[in-house]
Amino acid sequence: MKTNLDCIPCFLDQALRAGRIYTDDKKLLKQILDEVATILPDVPLDHKPPETGDLIYKKIKKITKTQDPLKSVKRKSTEEALELFPLYEKKLKAIESQEKKLLFAIKLAIAGNIIDFAVEDEFDIKKDVDEVLNKELAINHIEKFKKELEKAETILYIADNAGETVFDRFLISELDHKVLYVVRDEPVINDATREDAKAAGIDELATIIESGSSSPGLLIKNTTSEFKKLFQKADMVISKGQGNFEGLSEEDRPIFFLLKAKCEVIANHLGVSKDDIVLKAINI
Amino acid sequence: MKTNLDCIPCFLDQALRAGRIYTDDKKLLKQILDEVATILPDVPLDHKPPETGDLIYKKIKKITKTQDPLKSVKRKSTEEALELFPLYEKKLKAIESQEKKLLFAIKLAIAGNIIDFAVEDEFDIKKDVDEVLNKELAINHIEKFKKELEKAETILYIADNAGETVFDRFLISELDHKVLYVVRDEPVINDATREDAKAAGIDELATIIESGSSSPGLLIKNTTSEFKKLFQKADMVISKGQGNFEGLSEEDRPIFFLLKAKCEVIANHLGVSKDDIVLKAINI
Repeated sequence: MKTNLDCIPCFLDQALRAGRIYTDDKKLLKQILDEVATILPDVPLDHKPPETGDLIYKKIKKITKTQDPLKSVKRKSTEEALELFPLYEKKLKAIESQEKKLLFAIKLAIAGNIIDFAVEDEFDIKKDVDEVLNKELAINHIEKFKKELEKAETILYIADNAGETVFDRFLISELDHKVLYVVRDEPVINDATREDAKAAGIDELATIIESGSSSPGLLIKNTTSEFKKLFQKADMVISKGQGNFEGLSEEDRPIFFLLKAKCEVIANHLGVSKDDIVLKAINI
Repeated sequence: MKTNLDCIPCFLDQALRAGRIYTDDKKLLKQILDEVATILPDVPLDHKPPETGDLIYKKIKKITKTQDPLKSVKRKSTEEALELFPLYEKKLKAIESQEKKLLFAIKLAIAGNIIDFAVEDEFDIKKDVDEVLNKELAINHIEKFKKELEKAETILYIADNAGETVFDRFLISELDHKVLYVVRDEPVINDATREDAKAAGIDELATIIESGSSSPGLLIKNTTSEFKKLFQKADMVISKGQGNFEGLSEEDRPIFFLLKAKCEVIANHLGVSKDDIVLKAINI
């Protein structure tokens, strides 16, 4: 996805909101805003938003000399999500139809996506999860999803946030395939790293791998050559969340995107309304 | 008022929203964002927001080669407000108590302040006016206002937006004093100029004057020496709207501010909630 004019003020807004997670020093926050403002004129509109996100978070980390300020918050998100796990596991098990089960697991995986500090400061996981579960998918490519799943052997599952990782377990279980679960190499806001995925119990269901990229939205050009091969060869790619959509939506291989549209720009781009949930296939 | 960290992303957001009023050329809009982003690191936090607003609107005008894109929209706002005038005039006349009449006129003048393109794109004047009239003043310095009014001869009334000018007539009539009505020297967004004030019929009730400043919020340092004298000597100063508050709130003379708090920064600064209405006196 390309950068929209509306993304540009939003980058500065994100820099401030994220900066406040890393520091409360007003001088450092002003420095973050100044340095991010300085790079904005060099952002061409054909860049993908996570390319700029990457520069922003690198600046924030450098200026605040802080690498992982949400370490404890991410752990707490995971713990809270784990507490809710049995409740939704029971609901999932109670569904008899395999088709409805898969749809519910997809919705659970999308619902986990509400755990996102970059967009919202406060959240009540349970309430928000139920709200998402009560929605219909505004784009629903589940038929394509099922067809690809039937043929697939290896699935690349590109993770989004810590905490959300717990809700990915429902879908990974339902997929019942060999899954490679792709996390960020280094902490960036609350995006899931290997540590977060393990804390969620993903390692019991899938193989956790890094891609070489730590931008807040996977950018294939930044990944290792090994990952690039995996990305091309995988029978099926599932991408979680808005950031990964921004990074991957112009790739030329089939990808299934599971996300909640958290801003107007993404919603317009997808032709849905803000806060809609989506299962969108590309190149199929 | 000083610049808050939150004002900085907002400047860029305002530049885009205002830019879109001046042009729909994507390249020009990107140029506006780039040039505004470039000046942001030079904005110290002790600057008043309208100082930056001034730079932003000058850039927008220069880049788009457009001086007054809202000329026709301002005229329409004024016409719509004039259509509503008899309705509220009747309501005002129906009030018997002089005290209640003054309060109602103050609220009407504040209600006119909802006509603001810089903050909201769409509005329904009548509905929004009634909503404001139904609110209580979150800061109500009317006793001080009445006391000063009793002693005053000349009143400096610093105008805000076109259209709002129509609603200022109610208050100017109630004041029943010699009023100098201060407008912007040049068009800046939908701020009132002499033309807009005349179209609202202000010239029948007050003397319209310019200050020498056309920033979207009066900055005394940019005014003529003649205006500076008037500002110091006036028995009473009434300032309308958020922009003028941002420009004048640190002046050391008594001023009455009539406004609706349209953003969190202003609301926090005033100790009220967003969308609250305020009659605030300073230095008295």
